[in-house]
Amino acid sequence: MKKPLIFITNDDGYQARGFNALVDMVSEFARVIAVAPEISQSGKSHAITMDSPLFIRRVREDEDVLIYSCSGTPTDCVKIAFDRLMPERPVLTLSGINHGSNSAISVIYSGTIGAAAEASYYGIPAIGLSLTDHNPQADLSEAIKYSKKIILDILNRDNLPKPLCLNVNIPKGTSEDIKGIKLCRQCRGVWIEEFEQCFDPRGREYYWLGGQFYEREDGDPTETDHWALNNGYVSIVPVEMYDMTSYSTLKVLKDFIK
Amino acid sequence: MKKPLIFITNDDGYQARGFNALVDMVSEFARVIAVAPEISQSGKSHAITMDSPLFIRRVREDEDVLIYSCSGTPTDCVKIAFDRLMPERPVLTLSGINHGSNSAISVIYSGTIGAAAEASYYGIPAIGLSLTDHNPQADLSEAIKYSKKIILDILNRDNLPKPLCLNVNIPKGTSEDIKGIKLCRQCRGVWIEEFEQCFDPRGREYYWLGGQFYEREDGDPTETDHWALNNGYVSIVPVEMYDMTSYSTLKVLKDFIK
Repeated sequence: MKKPLIFITNDDGYQARGFNALVDMVSEFARVIAVAPEISQSGKSHAITMDSPLFIRRVREDEDVLIYSCSGTPTDCVKIAFDRLMPERPVLTLSGINHGSNSAISVIYSGTIGAAAEASYYGIPAIGLSLTDHNPQADLSEAIKYSKKIILDILNRDNLPKPLCLNVNIPKGTSEDIKGIKLCRQCRGVWIEEFEQCFDPRGREYYWLGGQFYEREDGDPTETDHWALNNGYVSIVPVEMYDMTSYSTLKVLKDFIK
Repeated sequence: MKKPLIFITNDDGYQARGFNALVDMVSEFARVIAVAPEISQSGKSHAITMDSPLFIRRVREDEDVLIYSCSGTPTDCVKIAFDRLMPERPVLTLSGINHGSNSAISVIYSGTIGAAAEASYYGIPAIGLSLTDHNPQADLSEAIKYSKKIILDILNRDNLPKPLCLNVNIPKGTSEDIKGIKLCRQCRGVWIEEFEQCFDPRGREYYWLGGQFYEREDGDPTETDHWALNNGYVSIVPVEMYDMTSYSTLKVLKDFIK
Protein backbone atom coordinates (compact mmCIF):
# COMPACT_ATOMS: atom_id res chain seq x y z
CA MET A 1 0.00 0.00 0.00
CA LYS A 2 1.23 3.50 -0.84
CA LYS A 3 2.25 5.43 2.26
CA PRO A 4 0.10 8.49 3.07
CA LEU A 5 1.44 11.96 2.22
CA ILE A 6 2.16 14.29 5.14
CA PHE A 7 3.14 17.94 4.74
CA ILE A 8 5.60 19.47 7.22
CA THR A 9 6.67 23.06 7.84
CA ASN A 10 8.04 25.09 10.76
CA ASP A 11 9.10 28.60 11.74
CA ASP A 12 12.69 28.03 12.90
CA GLY A 13 13.86 27.33 9.34
CA TYR A 14 14.69 24.19 7.37
CA GLN A 15 17.99 23.64 9.17
CA ALA A 16 16.44 23.45 12.67
CA ARG A 17 16.97 20.18 14.53
CA GLY A 18 13.35 19.92 15.72
CA PHE A 19 12.07 20.13 12.14
CA ASN A 20 14.53 17.54 10.82
CA ALA A 21 13.87 15.15 13.69
CA LEU A 22 10.14 15.40 12.93
CA VAL A 23 10.71 14.78 9.20
CA ASP A 24 12.80 11.69 9.96
CA MET A 25 10.28 10.26 12.42
CA VAL A 26 7.30 10.83 10.11
CA SER A 27 9.09 9.35 7.08
CA GLU A 28 9.03 5.98 8.86
CA PHE A 29 5.30 5.65 8.09
CA ALA A 30 4.53 8.39 5.52
CA ARG A 31 5.83 10.16 2.46
CA VAL A 32 6.94 13.66 3.45
CA ILE A 33 6.88 16.87 1.47
CA ALA A 34 8.20 19.75 3.52
CA VAL A 35 8.55 23.47 2.84
CA ALA A 36 10.30 25.40 5.59
CA PRO A 37 11.63 28.96 5.82
CA GLU A 38 15.14 29.72 4.57
CA ILE A 39 15.91 31.48 7.88
CA SER A 40 14.25 31.84 11.29
CA GLN A 41 10.69 33.20 11.17
CA SER A 42 10.01 33.02 14.90
CA GLY A 43 7.17 35.30 16.01
CA LYS A 44 5.90 35.79 12.46
CA SER A 45 2.34 34.82 13.40
CA HIS A 46 0.09 34.40 10.35
CA ALA A 47 2.11 36.89 8.25
CA ILE A 48 2.16 36.62 4.45
CA THR A 49 4.65 38.22 2.07
CA MET A 50 2.94 40.83 -0.09
CA ASP A 51 5.68 43.35 -0.86
CA SER A 52 8.31 40.99 -2.27
CA PRO A 53 8.31 37.73 -4.24
CA LEU A 54 9.21 34.28 -2.91
CA PHE A 55 12.21 32.15 -3.82
CA ILE A 56 12.11 28.35 -3.49
CA ARG A 57 15.04 25.92 -3.28
CA ARG A 58 15.05 22.11 -3.20
CA VAL A 59 17.28 21.32 -0.21
CA ARG A 60 16.85 17.56 0.35
CA GLU A 61 15.49 14.69 -1.72
CA ASP A 62 15.55 11.11 -0.41
CA GLU A 63 13.19 8.19 -0.78
CA ASP A 64 9.90 9.42 0.74
CA VAL A 65 11.34 12.83 1.74
CA LEU A 66 11.38 16.00 -0.34
CA ILE A 67 12.30 19.28 1.38
CA TYR A 68 12.14 22.79 -0.05
CA SER A 69 13.25 26.02 1.56
CA CYS A 70 11.20 29.19 1.01
CA SER A 71 12.33 32.79 1.41
CA GLY A 72 9.02 33.78 3.05
CA THR A 73 7.04 33.21 6.24
CA PRO A 74 5.65 29.91 7.58
CA THR A 75 2.21 30.78 6.16
CA ASP A 76 3.82 31.49 2.77
CA CYS A 77 5.39 27.99 2.97
CA VAL A 78 1.94 26.42 3.35
CA LYS A 79 0.34 28.51 0.61
CA ILE A 80 3.02 27.84 -2.00
CA ALA A 81 3.22 24.15 -1.05
CA PHE A 82 -0.53 23.67 -1.52
CA ASP A 83 -0.63 25.72 -4.74
CA ARG A 84 2.62 24.73 -6.45
CA LEU A 85 4.75 22.07 -4.77
CA MET A 86 2.53 19.13 -3.86
CA PRO A 87 1.24 16.60 -6.39
CA GLU A 88 -1.78 15.82 -4.19
CA ARG A 89 -3.36 17.03 -0.94
CA PRO A 90 -1.68 15.62 2.20
CA VAL A 91 -3.67 13.71 4.82
CA LEU A 92 -2.12 15.80 7.60
CA THR A 93 -0.03 18.94 8.13
CA LEU A 94 2.57 19.22 10.87
CA SER A 95 4.35 22.39 11.95
CA GLY A 96 7.45 22.11 14.15
CA ILE A 97 8.90 20.74 16.25
CA ASN A 98 9.36 24.30 17.46
CA HIS A 99 12.24 25.15 19.77
CA GLY A 100 10.32 27.01 22.49
CA SER A 101 6.84 27.06 24.01
CA ASN A 102 3.75 28.22 22.12
CA SER A 103 1.35 27.93 25.03
CA ALA A 104 -1.25 30.48 26.24
CA ILE A 105 -1.39 33.77 24.28
CA SER A 106 1.92 32.94 22.51
CA VAL A 107 -0.31 31.06 20.08
CA ILE A 108 -1.23 34.38 18.41
CA TYR A 109 2.41 35.41 17.78
CA SER A 110 3.56 31.94 16.76
CA GLY A 111 4.67 31.25 13.19
CA THR A 112 4.39 27.54 14.01
CA ILE A 113 0.68 27.83 14.76
CA GLY A 114 0.08 30.42 12.02
CA ALA A 115 1.23 27.82 9.48
CA ALA A 116 -0.83 25.04 11.07
CA ALA A 117 -3.95 27.21 11.07
CA GLU A 118 -3.37 28.12 7.43
CA ALA A 119 -3.17 24.44 6.42
CA SER A 120 -6.37 23.73 8.33
CA TYR A 121 -8.24 26.16 6.03
CA TYR A 122 -7.67 23.67 3.19
CA GLY A 123 -9.66 21.10 5.16
CA ILE A 124 -6.49 19.24 6.18
CA PRO A 125 -6.06 18.45 9.90
CA ALA A 126 -3.06 20.36 11.24
CA ILE A 127 -0.92 20.00 14.34
CA GLY A 128 1.58 22.54 15.65
CA LEU A 129 4.23 20.87 17.81
CA SER A 130 6.48 22.74 20.24
CA LEU A 131 9.01 21.75 22.89
CA THR A 132 9.19 24.15 25.86
CA ASP A 133 12.96 24.53 25.49
CA HIS A 134 14.50 27.32 23.38
CA ASN A 135 17.88 25.61 23.18
CA PRO A 136 18.57 24.66 19.53
CA GLN A 137 20.52 21.66 20.89
CA ALA A 138 17.68 20.52 23.19
CA ASP A 139 17.07 16.81 23.76
CA LEU A 140 14.22 15.98 21.36
CA SER A 141 13.59 12.36 22.34
CA GLU A 142 10.44 12.87 24.46
CA ALA A 143 9.10 15.49 22.04
CA ILE A 144 9.47 12.99 19.19
CA LYS A 145 7.89 10.17 21.21
CA TYR A 146 4.79 12.20 22.17
CA SER A 147 4.51 13.83 18.75
CA LYS A 148 4.40 10.38 17.16
CA LYS A 149 1.72 9.19 19.56
CA ILE A 150 -0.49 12.24 18.85
CA ILE A 151 0.08 12.10 15.07
CA LEU A 152 -0.87 8.40 14.90
CA ASP A 153 -3.91 9.02 17.09
CA ILE A 154 -5.16 11.79 14.78
CA LEU A 155 -4.38 9.76 11.62
CA ASN A 156 -6.50 6.89 12.96
CA ARG A 157 -9.58 9.04 13.68
CA ASP A 158 -12.53 9.61 11.37
CA ASN A 159 -14.95 12.49 11.44
CA LEU A 160 -12.53 15.08 12.75
CA PRO A 161 -13.99 18.59 12.98
CA LYS A 162 -12.95 20.93 10.14
CA PRO A 163 -10.99 23.11 10.25
CA LEU A 164 -8.89 21.26 12.85
CA CYS A 165 -5.81 22.95 14.28
CA LEU A 166 -4.18 21.56 17.41
CA ASN A 167 -1.60 23.43 19.46
CA VAL A 168 0.61 20.79 21.12
CA ASN A 169 3.27 21.75 23.66
CA ILE A 170 5.63 19.19 25.13
CA PRO A 171 7.37 20.01 28.40
CA LYS A 172 11.15 19.80 28.68
CA GLY A 173 12.10 16.71 30.63
CA THR A 174 12.89 13.02 30.70
CA SER A 175 10.39 10.18 30.28
CA GLU A 176 10.08 10.03 34.09
CA ASP A 177 9.21 13.75 34.26
CA ILE A 178 6.40 13.61 31.69
CA LYS A 179 3.15 12.19 33.05
CA GLY A 180 1.00 11.99 29.93
CA ILE A 181 -1.15 14.06 27.58
CA LYS A 182 -3.86 16.51 28.62
CA LEU A 183 -6.48 18.16 26.41
CA CYS A 184 -6.74 21.78 27.58
CA ARG A 185 -8.03 25.24 26.92
CA GLN A 186 -5.67 28.19 26.43
CA CYS A 187 -4.53 29.77 29.68
CA ARG A 188 -5.70 33.39 29.83
CA GLY A 189 -3.04 36.04 30.25
CA VAL A 190 -0.83 38.43 28.32
CA TRP A 191 2.80 39.25 27.67
CA ILE A 192 3.78 42.61 29.11
CA GLU A 193 6.81 44.05 27.43
CA GLU A 194 9.92 45.51 28.91
CA PHE A 195 12.02 46.71 26.00
CA GLU A 196 15.75 46.76 26.63
CA GLN A 197 17.38 49.99 25.48
CA CYS A 198 20.84 49.76 23.87
CA PHE A 199 23.16 52.03 21.86
CA ASP A 200 25.10 51.13 18.74
CA PRO A 201 28.79 52.16 18.28
CA ARG A 202 27.61 55.43 16.69
CA GLY A 203 25.37 56.28 19.66
CA ARG A 204 22.12 55.38 17.94
CA GLU A 205 19.42 54.11 20.29
CA TYR A 206 17.72 50.77 19.67
CA TYR A 207 15.41 48.42 21.56
CA TRP A 208 15.16 44.66 22.06
CA LEU A 209 11.76 43.13 22.69
CA GLY A 210 11.67 41.52 26.13
CA GLY A 211 9.01 40.98 28.74
CA GLN A 212 7.14 38.33 30.63
CA PHE A 213 3.84 36.50 30.75
CA TYR A 214 1.21 37.57 33.29
CA GLU A 215 -1.47 35.00 33.98
CA ARG A 216 -5.00 36.42 34.18
CA GLU A 217 -6.92 33.23 34.74
CA ASP A 218 -10.48 33.74 35.87
CA GLY A 219 -11.58 30.11 35.63
CA ASP A 220 -10.37 26.70 36.80
CA PRO A 221 -6.60 26.86 36.23
CA THR A 222 -6.30 23.05 36.03
CA GLU A 223 -8.14 23.18 32.68
CA THR A 224 -5.37 25.26 31.06
CA ASP A 225 -2.29 24.50 28.99
CA HIS A 226 -0.09 26.36 31.49
CA TRP A 227 -1.24 24.18 34.34
CA ALA A 228 -0.67 21.03 32.25
CA LEU A 229 2.86 22.05 31.24
CA ASN A 230 3.79 23.17 34.76
CA ASN A 231 2.58 19.82 36.09
CA GLY A 232 4.47 17.61 33.66
CA TYR A 233 1.80 17.00 31.00
CA VAL A 234 1.91 17.43 27.26
CA SER A 235 -0.83 20.01 26.48
CA ILE A 236 -3.14 19.91 23.47
CA VAL A 237 -5.32 22.99 22.80
CA PRO A 238 -7.68 22.93 19.80
CA VAL A 239 -7.33 26.37 18.23
CA GLU A 240 -10.02 28.52 16.54
CA MET A 241 -8.38 30.69 13.88
CA TYR A 242 -10.99 30.50 11.15
CA ASP A 243 -14.00 32.45 12.38
CA MET A 244 -12.56 35.24 14.52
CA THR A 245 -15.96 36.78 15.36
CA SER A 246 -16.46 37.45 19.07
CA TYR A 247 -20.07 36.27 19.32
CA SER A 248 -20.27 37.31 22.97
CA THR A 249 -19.26 40.88 22.08
CA LEU A 250 -21.64 40.84 19.11
CA LYS A 251 -24.52 40.27 21.54
CA VAL A 252 -23.38 43.06 23.88
CA LEU A 253 -22.96 45.59 21.07
CA LYS A 254 -26.13 44.62 19.16
CA ASP A 255 -28.16 47.45 20.69
CA PHE A 256 -25.87 50.32 20.49
CA ILE A 257 -24.39 50.82 17.06
CA LYS A 258 -27.11 51.69 14.60
CA MET B 1 -10.67 70.08 30.34
CA LYS B 2 -7.67 68.11 29.14
CA LYS B 3 -8.38 66.29 25.89
CA PRO B 4 -8.33 62.48 26.11
CA LEU B 5 -5.26 60.61 24.81
CA ILE B 6 -5.78 58.34 21.78
CA PHE B 7 -3.10 56.03 20.41
CA ILE B 8 -2.93 55.45 16.64
CA THR B 9 -0.98 52.97 14.55
CA ASN B 10 -1.34 51.30 11.14
CA ASP B 11 0.32 48.79 8.84
CA ASP B 12 0.84 50.86 5.68
CA GLY B 13 3.55 52.95 7.35
CA TYR B 14 3.66 56.46 8.86
CA GLN B 15 3.60 58.18 5.48
CA ALA B 16 0.31 56.60 4.34
CA ARG B 17 -2.52 59.02 3.59
CA GLY B 18 -5.16 56.98 5.46
CA PHE B 19 -3.10 57.09 8.65
CA ASN B 20 -2.40 60.82 8.42
CA ALA B 21 -6.02 61.68 7.65
CA LEU B 22 -7.06 59.68 10.73
CA VAL B 23 -4.47 61.45 12.92
CA ASP B 24 -5.69 64.85 11.73
CA MET B 25 -9.37 64.02 12.29
CA VAL B 26 -8.79 62.59 15.78
CA SER B 27 -6.60 65.52 16.87
CA GLU B 28 -9.69 67.74 16.63
CA PHE B 29 -11.02 66.21 19.86
CA ALA B 30 -8.10 64.28 21.38
CA ARG B 31 -4.38 64.33 21.99
CA VAL B 32 -2.72 61.83 19.66
CA ILE B 33 0.38 59.74 20.16
CA ALA B 34 1.04 57.57 17.14
CA VAL B 35 3.67 54.94 16.37
CA ALA B 36 3.55 53.61 12.82
CA PRO B 37 5.88 51.39 10.81
CA GLU B 38 8.79 52.96 8.94
CA ILE B 39 7.74 51.08 5.77
CA SER B 40 4.74 49.02 4.63
CA GLN B 41 3.92 46.08 6.88
CA SER B 42 0.85 44.88 4.98
CA GLY B 43 -0.03 41.26 5.69
CA LYS B 44 2.16 41.12 8.78
CA SER B 45 -0.65 39.76 10.94
CA HIS B 46 0.26 39.69 14.64
CA ALA B 47 4.00 39.29 13.92
CA ILE B 48 6.59 40.51 16.44
CA THR B 49 10.27 41.18 15.82
CA MET B 50 12.41 38.73 17.77
CA ASP B 51 15.57 38.35 15.66
CA SER B 52 16.53 42.02 15.34
CA PRO B 53 16.19 45.16 17.46
CA LEU B 54 13.82 48.08 16.85
CA PHE B 55 14.71 51.62 15.86
CA ILE B 56 12.41 54.54 16.70
CA ARG B 57 12.31 58.01 15.11
CA ARG B 58 10.23 61.07 16.02
CA VAL B 59 8.70 62.11 12.70
CA ARG B 60 6.11 64.77 13.62
CA GLU B 61 5.44 66.90 16.65
CA ASP B 62 2.63 69.46 16.69
CA GLU B 63 0.26 70.69 19.33
CA ASP B 64 -1.68 67.55 20.40
CA VAL B 65 0.08 65.31 17.84
CA LEU B 66 3.26 63.28 18.36
CA ILE B 67 4.19 60.68 15.73
CA TYR B 68 7.01 58.15 15.87
CA SER B 69 8.08 55.72 13.20
CA CYS B 70 9.23 52.22 14.20
CA SER B 71 11.39 49.81 12.20
CA GLY B 72 9.22 46.83 13.22
CA THR B 73 5.74 45.42 12.70
CA PRO B 74 2.39 46.98 13.68
CA THR B 75 2.29 44.81 16.82
CA ASP B 76 5.82 45.99 17.70
CA CYS B 77 4.54 49.58 17.37
CA VAL B 78 1.85 48.92 19.97
CA LYS B 79 4.16 47.10 22.37
CA ILE B 80 6.88 49.74 22.34
CA ALA B 81 4.34 52.57 22.53
CA PHE B 82 2.71 51.09 25.63
CA ASP B 83 6.04 50.22 27.28
CA ARG B 84 8.23 53.19 26.32
CA LEU B 85 6.59 56.03 24.40
CA MET B 86 3.35 56.96 26.15
CA PRO B 87 3.23 58.99 29.38
CA GLU B 88 -0.15 57.45 30.29
CA ARG B 89 -2.52 54.79 28.97
CA PRO B 90 -4.75 56.00 26.10
CA VAL B 91 -8.54 55.81 26.29
CA LEU B 92 -8.69 54.20 22.83
CA THR B 93 -6.43 52.65 20.20
CA LEU B 94 -7.04 53.10 16.47
CA SER B 95 -5.29 51.22 13.68
CA GLY B 96 -5.58 52.52 10.12
CA ILE B 97 -7.16 53.84 8.07
CA ASN B 98 -5.91 50.91 6.04
CA HIS B 99 -5.76 51.14 2.26
CA GLY B 100 -7.60 47.91 1.36
CA SER B 101 -10.24 45.63 2.84
CA ASN B 102 -9.71 43.55 5.98
CA SER B 103 -13.05 41.74 5.85
CA ALA B 104 -13.74 38.01 6.24
CA ILE B 105 -10.66 35.79 6.77
CA SER B 106 -8.33 38.66 5.79
CA VAL B 107 -8.63 39.64 9.44
CA ILE B 108 -6.09 36.91 10.33
CA TYR B 109 -3.43 38.18 7.88
CA SER B 110 -4.02 41.84 8.63
CA GLY B 111 -1.34 43.91 10.35
CA THR B 112 -4.02 46.54 10.97
CA ILE B 113 -6.11 44.16 13.05
CA GLY B 114 -3.05 42.45 14.60
CA ALA B 115 -2.10 45.81 16.11
CA ALA B 116 -5.65 46.56 17.27
CA ALA B 117 -5.95 43.14 18.93
CA GLU B 118 -2.59 43.67 20.65
CA ALA B 119 -3.73 47.00 22.12
CA SER B 120 -6.94 45.37 23.33
CA TYR B 121 -4.87 43.02 25.54
CA TYR B 122 -3.92 46.07 27.62
CA GLY B 123 -7.59 46.57 28.42
CA ILE B 124 -7.85 49.51 25.99
CA PRO B 125 -10.73 49.40 23.45
CA ALA B 126 -9.28 49.10 19.96
CA ILE B 127 -10.70 49.72 16.50
CA GLY B 128 -9.13 48.67 13.21
CA LEU B 129 -10.34 50.87 10.34
CA SER B 130 -10.05 49.91 6.66
CA LEU B 131 -11.29 51.37 3.39
CA THR B 132 -12.04 48.75 0.71
CA ASP B 133 -9.84 50.54 -1.82
CA HIS B 134 -6.16 49.67 -2.26
CA ASN B 135 -5.37 52.88 -4.11
CA PRO B 136 -2.95 54.95 -1.98
CA GLN B 137 -4.62 58.06 -3.47
CA ALA B 138 -8.17 56.87 -2.67
CA ASP B 139 -10.83 59.40 -1.64
CA LEU B 140 -10.87 59.18 2.16
CA SER B 141 -13.79 61.51 2.91
CA GLU B 142 -16.47 58.89 3.64
CA ALA B 143 -13.96 56.67 5.51
CA ILE B 144 -13.10 59.63 7.74
CA LYS B 145 -16.76 60.54 8.27
CA TYR B 146 -17.79 57.02 9.33
CA SER B 147 -14.61 56.45 11.35
CA LYS B 148 -15.36 59.57 13.36
CA LYS B 149 -18.94 58.47 14.00
CA ILE B 150 -17.83 55.04 15.26
CA ILE B 151 -14.95 56.44 17.35
CA LEU B 152 -17.22 58.96 19.10
CA ASP B 153 -19.86 56.28 19.67
CA ILE B 154 -17.32 53.97 21.35
CA LEU B 155 -15.79 56.84 23.39
CA ASN B 156 -19.24 57.68 24.76
CA ARG B 157 -20.04 54.12 25.92
CA ASP B 158 -19.46 52.71 29.39
CA ASN B 159 -19.07 49.07 30.32
CA LEU B 160 -17.51 47.93 27.08
CA PRO B 161 -16.48 44.26 27.05
CA LYS B 162 -12.75 43.66 27.57
CA PRO B 163 -10.76 42.91 25.52
CA LEU B 164 -12.63 44.84 22.81
CA CYS B 165 -11.33 44.75 19.26
CA LEU B 166 -13.54 45.94 16.41
CA ASN B 167 -12.82 45.28 12.75
CA VAL B 168 -14.40 48.13 10.78
CA ASN B 169 -14.47 48.11 6.97
CA ILE B 170 -15.78 51.05 5.01
CA PRO B 171 -16.89 50.46 1.41
CA LYS B 172 -15.45 52.56 -1.39
CA GLY B 173 -18.04 55.05 -2.57
CA THR B 174 -19.70 58.44 -2.21
CA SER B 175 -22.06 59.53 0.56
CA GLU B 176 -24.97 58.49 -1.66
CA ASP B 177 -23.54 54.98 -2.11
CA ILE B 178 -23.07 54.27 1.60
CA LYS B 179 -26.28 53.32 3.40
CA GLY B 180 -25.16 53.16 7.02
CA ILE B 181 -23.38 50.96 9.55
CA LYS B 182 -24.06 47.26 10.16
CA LEU B 183 -22.83 45.11 13.05
CA CYS B 184 -21.85 41.75 11.54
CA ARG B 185 -20.13 38.45 11.98
CA GLN B 186 -17.14 37.46 9.87
CA CYS B 187 -18.08 35.95 6.50
CA ARG B 188 -16.79 32.36 6.30
CA GLY B 189 -14.46 31.53 3.46
CA VAL B 190 -10.80 31.27 2.52
CA TRP B 191 -8.23 32.72 0.16
CA ILE B 192 -7.01 30.15 -2.35
CA GLU B 193 -3.66 31.05 -3.80
CA GLU B 194 -2.53 31.14 -7.34
CA PHE B 195 1.15 32.05 -7.25
CA GLU B 196 2.43 33.82 -10.32
CA GLN B 197 5.72 32.38 -11.57
CA CYS B 198 8.34 34.81 -12.93
CA PHE B 199 12.04 34.74 -13.85
CA ASP B 200 14.68 37.32 -12.98
CA PRO B 201 17.24 38.55 -15.56
CA ARG B 202 19.57 35.71 -14.52
CA GLY B 203 16.87 33.07 -15.09
CA ARG B 204 16.14 32.50 -11.43
CA GLU B 205 12.55 31.50 -10.69
CA TYR B 206 10.42 33.45 -8.21
CA TYR B 207 6.77 33.64 -7.20
CA TRP B 208 4.30 36.39 -6.38
CA LEU B 209 1.48 35.68 -3.97
CA GLY B 210 -1.87 36.01 -5.73
CA GLY B 211 -5.24 34.35 -5.40
CA GLN B 212 -8.85 34.98 -4.63
CA PHE B 213 -11.41 34.69 -1.88
CA TYR B 214 -13.86 31.78 -1.95
CA GLU B 215 -16.96 32.25 0.17
CA ARG B 216 -17.96 29.16 2.19
CA GLU B 217 -20.93 30.58 4.02
CA ASP B 218 -23.10 27.98 5.68
CA GLY B 219 -25.37 30.39 7.57
CA ASP B 220 -27.47 33.47 6.82
CA PRO B 221 -25.23 35.48 4.47
CA THR B 222 -26.99 38.76 5.36
CA GLU B 223 -25.38 38.57 8.83
CA THR B 224 -21.85 38.77 7.38
CA ASP B 225 -19.36 41.56 6.75
CA HIS B 226 -19.13 40.59 3.07
CA TRP B 227 -22.85 40.99 2.57
CA ALA B 228 -22.78 44.35 4.36
CA LEU B 229 -19.90 45.69 2.24
CA ASN B 230 -21.39 44.37 -1.02
CA ASN B 231 -24.66 46.07 -0.14
CA GLY B 232 -23.24 49.49 0.67
CA TYR B 233 -22.90 49.26 4.45
CA VAL B 234 -19.95 49.94 6.72
CA SER B 235 -19.28 46.61 8.50
CA ILE B 236 -18.25 46.24 12.15
CA VAL B 237 -17.16 42.78 13.34
CA PRO B 238 -16.14 42.35 16.99
CA VAL B 239 -13.03 40.17 16.87
CA GLU B 240 -11.92 37.45 19.33
CA MET B 241 -8.12 37.24 19.34
CA TYR B 242 -7.48 36.74 23.04
CA ASP B 243 -8.69 33.23 23.86
CA MET B 244 -8.07 31.19 20.71
CA THR B 245 -9.40 27.93 22.18
CA SER B 246 -11.91 26.15 19.95
CA TYR B 247 -14.39 25.14 22.64
CA SER B 248 -16.52 23.24 20.14
CA THR B 249 -13.53 21.11 19.08
CA LEU B 250 -12.52 20.65 22.72
CA LYS B 251 -15.89 18.96 23.33
CA VAL B 252 -15.54 16.70 20.27
CA LEU B 253 -12.00 15.62 21.16
CA LYS B 254 -12.63 15.21 24.91
CA ASP B 255 -13.16 11.46 24.60
CA PHE B 256 -10.41 10.41 22.39
CA ILE B 257 -7.01 11.68 23.45
CA LYS B 258 -6.03 10.20 26.78
